[in-house]
Amino acid sequence: MHSVNFCLELQEDLRKIHVGLIFIAKIVVQEEIFVKERAKWEAENRRHYNKNEFFINRCRWDAKYKKRHFQCVYEDRRKAVKDVPCFWVTAMYANKIIRKEIAKHDEDALEFLKDIKSCRTDDLKGFQLEFMFDSSNPYFKNEVLTKKYELKDGGECTFLMAVGTEIKWYPGKTLTESIEKMTIGSEVVQVVQTCQSFFNFFATKTHRTSLCLDEDADKLEGNIIPLDYAIAVILRDDIIPHAISWFNYDEEGAMDEED
Amino acid sequence: MHSVNFCLELQEDLRKIHVGLIFIAKIVVQEEIFVKERAKWEAENRRHYNKNEFFINRCRWDAKYKKRHFQCVYEDRRKAVKDVPCFWVTAMYANKIIRKEIAKHDEDALEFLKDIKSCRTDDLKGFQLEFMFDSSNPYFKNEVLTKKYELKDGGECTFLMAVGTEIKWYPGKTLTESIEKMTIGSEVVQVVQTCQSFFNFFATKTHRTSLCLDEDADKLEGNIIPLDYAIAVILRDDIIPHAISWFNYDEEGAMDEED
Repeated sequence: MHSVNFCLELQEDLRKIHVGLIFIAKIVVQEEIFVKERAKWEAENRRHYNKNEFFINRCRWDAKYKKRHFQCVYEDRRKAVKDVPCFWVTAMYANKIIRKEIAKHDEDALEFLKDIKSCRTDDLKGFQLEFMFDSSNPYFKNEVLTKKYELKDGGECTFLMAVGTEIKWYPGKTLTESIEKMTIGSEVVQVVQTCQSFFNFFATKTHRTSLCLDEDADKLEGNIIPLDYAIAVILRDDIIPHAISWFNYDEEGAMDEED
Repeated sequence: MHSVNFCLELQEDLRKIHVGLIFIAKIVVQEEIFVKERAKWEAENRRHYNKNEFFINRCRWDAKYKKRHFQCVYEDRRKAVKDVPCFWVTAMYANKIIRKEIAKHDEDALEFLKDIKSCRTDDLKGFQLEFMFDSSNPYFKNEVLTKKYELKDGGECTFLMAVGTEIKWYPGKTLTESIEKMTIGSEVVQVVQTCQSFFNFFATKTHRTSLCLDEDADKLEGNIIPLDYAIAVILRDDIIPHAISWFNYDEEGAMDEED
């Protein structure tokens, strides 16, 4: 016979699974409705606009729709997972591309990550990710780290502007740098260098690319995409909408099992 | 009894060693004289100037002296080593800090490196390195790659500005990037990312530091220096003046022997 405590713990676990499944179901249902509603809107509106106007108006429709139907689900999810330890770092770590970017020494700081959001930029053609951190985070002062992607026409080529927040690290806590003692000539000096860290994702970069925005498909088209952009797209399209599924899943483990 | 060919090869090897030793001797002697002459100049001139004027005038004296006494030796050395395969890459590779930065795939391109020079910036407080490449180099178009270091006062902190030449890579030859196929969602895409390469040294960076120029010692003073700056100083103070010694030496091997 099981103890009352065991039964209470089991009950609590089942409750959590139940809550998680409800969120997954809500988002899956919302996405299915969204795809249908969007196709309906497209069918009704395509003939009224030229290609660019159509893109802009569809973006506006998207934003309005998502604000009404998804934002509240994401907000409820945020509240539901806020006491789940390591929720977002676990969800990100389950993806095998993002996992490679997370260094062992990042994990502690990423435990303070309490939400990730995405939105379009003002011109609608780019997007921005927002990473919300708990104020008790002892690694850096910022409560929000953002990364924004925008395309700029550079004549012969296109520039993909990747603008990240400058991280205000607390003294001795910089996770993107390592310090090593080196002997140069006859002197021993402390040398600082960039090291592997997920927080390098927030570095501001200008990528010279041949990418262009396919307004119809609403995505960048091109042969080769930069790694940080690929990660941003995975976060926007996969991790943010399906964070609970990712939290309960391990792409690497799943692939091992498939082998 | 040895063949005539063997004797001729030996003679040629001895001639090369002889030429190398003469250059090493010439530079060592020049440096000894320089240190004495500079001390003499300092003793005679210190009282005539305030600290900053003294620094500026000593820099001018240095530049004039080096132009007259070192430039011709370096120029003769350049001519003497121009047919020695991999001279500069071997000299750099012998230093254990620089060696770590040279990736296997860099070696072929660095064989086209035919000289390295250094000079002060116009304000005398910074310096610039110039890497001269043979025009037959199939990796990039530039025949000269430069890296300039300057300090800028930023109020609360100092900025060490590290400005490098933008490398004009030939198509498919970019050594600082690697391309990998990745599956994102249901799509296979080519993802480009930065990889280890000595040529990352030419990236333009702004280092926020606490370094300051000690005009008396004519060097940056501070607790922690960035790795690329440390490498630039090693090149300026060790590799360029003593390239022939480095070519014939292996710091890593020498340390192994010492162990």
